[in-house]
Amino acid sequence: MSPLTTSPTVKEIRPLTRIDGPEIQDLARGAAILGTGGGGDPYVGRLLAEAAVRERGPVGIVQVADVPDDAVVVSAAMMGAPTVMVEKLPTGTQFAQAVRNLTDRLGIVPTHIACIEAGGVNSTTPIVAAAELGLPLIDADGMGRAFPEVQMVLPTLYGHAAAPMAVADEKGNSLVLDTIDNRWAERLARTATVEMGCSVSTAQYVLTGAQLKQSYVPGTLSLCVELGRTLLRARAGNADPVAAVAEVLSGRILFEGKVTDVERRTQTGFARGTARVSGVGADQDRTAMLRFQNEHLLVEVEGRIETTAPDLIIVLEADTGEPITTEGLRYGARVRIVTAPADPRWHSAAAHDLAGPAYFGYDTDPVLFDGVVVSGS
Amino acid sequence: MSPLTTSPTVKEIRPLTRIDGPEIQDLARGAAILGTGGGGDPYVGRLLAEAAVRERGPVGIVQVADVPDDAVVVSAAMMGAPTVMVEKLPTGTQFAQAVRNLTDRLGIVPTHIACIEAGGVNSTTPIVAAAELGLPLIDADGMGRAFPEVQMVLPTLYGHAAAPMAVADEKGNSLVLDTIDNRWAERLARTATVEMGCSVSTAQYVLTGAQLKQSYVPGTLSLCVELGRTLLRARAGNADPVAAVAEVLSGRILFEGKVTDVERRTQTGFARGTARVSGVGADQDRTAMLRFQNEHLLVEVEGRIETTAPDLIIVLEADTGEPITTEGLRYGARVRIVTAPADPRWHSAAAHDLAGPAYFGYDTDPVLFDGVVVSGS
Repeated sequence: MSPLTTSPTVKEIRPLTRIDGPEIQDLARGAAILGTGGGGDPYVGRLLAEAAVRERGPVGIVQVADVPDDAVVVSAAMMGAPTVMVEKLPTGTQFAQAVRNLTDRLGIVPTHIACIEAGGVNSTTPIVAAAELGLPLIDADGMGRAFPEVQMVLPTLYGHAAAPMAVADEKGNSLVLDTIDNRWAERLARTATVEMGCSVSTAQYVLTGAQLKQSYVPGTLSLCVELGRTLLRARAGNADPVAAVAEVLSGRILFEGKVTDVERRTQTGFARGTARVSGVGADQDRTAMLRFQNEHLLVEVEGRIETTAPDLIIVLEADTGEPITTEGLRYGARVRIVTAPADPRWHSAAAHDLAGPAYFGYDTDPVLFDGVVVSGS
Repeated sequence: MSPLTTSPTVKEIRPLTRIDGPEIQDLARGAAILGTGGGGDPYVGRLLAEAAVRERGPVGIVQVADVPDDAVVVSAAMMGAPTVMVEKLPTGTQFAQAVRNLTDRLGIVPTHIACIEAGGVNSTTPIVAAAELGLPLIDADGMGRAFPEVQMVLPTLYGHAAAPMAVADEKGNSLVLDTIDNRWAERLARTATVEMGCSVSTAQYVLTGAQLKQSYVPGTLSLCVELGRTLLRARAGNADPVAAVAEVLSGRILFEGKVTDVERRTQTGFARGTARVSGVGADQDRTAMLRFQNEHLLVEVEGRIETTAPDLIIVLEADTGEPITTEGLRYGARVRIVTAPADPRWHSAAAHDLAGPAYFGYDTDPVLFDGVVVSGS
């Protein structure tokens, strides 16, 4: 069972029944927290989703337990470089188009839309697809966080296929991939994405309801909305918004400081880099290092690795608790770093192979949110 | 009407009715001549086609005039870097797979296979697809020569679409593209090809029989076999094989010399470069420069541009007349350079935009095979 749904706090979350304008802003903010710095700019996703529900009406939300086993579920997501998505806003119809291309190709009729990752843009783009297609959206996602590659989702660990997968750009070009594994779906979709201009819509992971129940993280959209509301509520009540977020996620506040150095490079479609944070307050005279690749993947304090992916490393504005994307990290920013547990299914040996620190090129065993090292099996 | 089919010599060509082992060797050699240095290694295509007819029996050849207007024609071709194709021989079933992926997707039943270019490998790979699928092959191609990019075919000039287009690798990965124009089909298929390892099979240009009759070059396969036989016949009869080839193509022998310098670089999946040829015999003390990009695209003698694409620039071994690919050009080789007219439809302004010297980055008006400059319109 996931701590995201079993922690005492999270148990109290009211499940969403529909998403309309007011929910979208909270959801985008909360998804940017779970997105651990990646998953795209929440503002872009929010604008698109708001426009979609304004035009098409609110989107009905279905809880995972209520999805029929024979449902035909398609996950809709953007793929590309977050920096480009901001400059080249996708068209609303692009998401529905990718889903249609895929289901037409397979000769199936989709019954539900799902969300593949909890990230700034990809927790809201499925709202756009669902609104356009008049389909309900499932309150779940494939990760419980954000990760940069197509295969890095829990369904991969259950043997479910990302492909056939559709990719569509805003110009009218599209393709449908069939691949031998999910890593090849990532490779081929990624190169097409780059050629298409680094901002495309995709439809992927066509699953039955039963497969979704087995492999998705339930309650993610409700959790995102709750996280967004928690932030605002704490601020309005003069409480500590960062502490409130950490509590909802059963996490800890690891470090507080000022960003004193950011080094980044864009490589093969990813934003990689490091950020140095010089401690203030209780962390005075200590230094934290964040290592990221779209998402924050590793955090060190005074040279000790405190947490790595797959657990969550979340960077928030120190005072407001607003999530900061890895793209948005700036010199001088006052931040607090929160770490929190990922869905426990991310802690099998196979899951660590899929999205542990070694996969991303960091020479370390995985380290949990609380600093416990997972020794190599 | 094409000079390839109306020259006195070519009129005498006996149209093929089927292709079996003996024809394949001649066809591959002749196609390498029309391929003007590109279109892949004829040896690879020959091996695959020979294996296919050995296993499946000979392939029936249909003349263009005999194709029903409502025929459903698919062109099968390899895409990638010729150097890789030699090292990573495609599987025979890969070509049929690409065709099946495409026609299944479109819900159509193909009636004929066609050849998109006359080049070393791509005039023989359609034989493999036709044999595997049990379909007849049409005696034609989309260019009357070889060119490096998907959109560089006569059907583009008639408004026919390359996509939906299927791409399949030897591992089992595949994709089907839908694009807004043929240039986008090239871009997306090319990046997928590179990611898939630079040697893939494709199915493209789904046309009706009527569209094929309008836009393909008729008689190409028969012409290739005739060219291959002409070479061998001339050699056996102690005649000049280079002169015999030039005569079949209504071309001229431009230059004879020794390759004294070859400069090449592989860029974005293409083999680009230049070769210097120092004259011998009648060309003593003169120098020719060949500029190529998969195919020979421009030839200068003593600094004067003598011929450019779209007309044919063919490099043959001086004595044997064997065609030399741009990949196979070696220091010290004794060569003769033949130039010959392309299908006249390659000489409209639109065709020059599509595949004239300016498109390839050479700052010149097109120059015909006989040295006549086509002034900018």
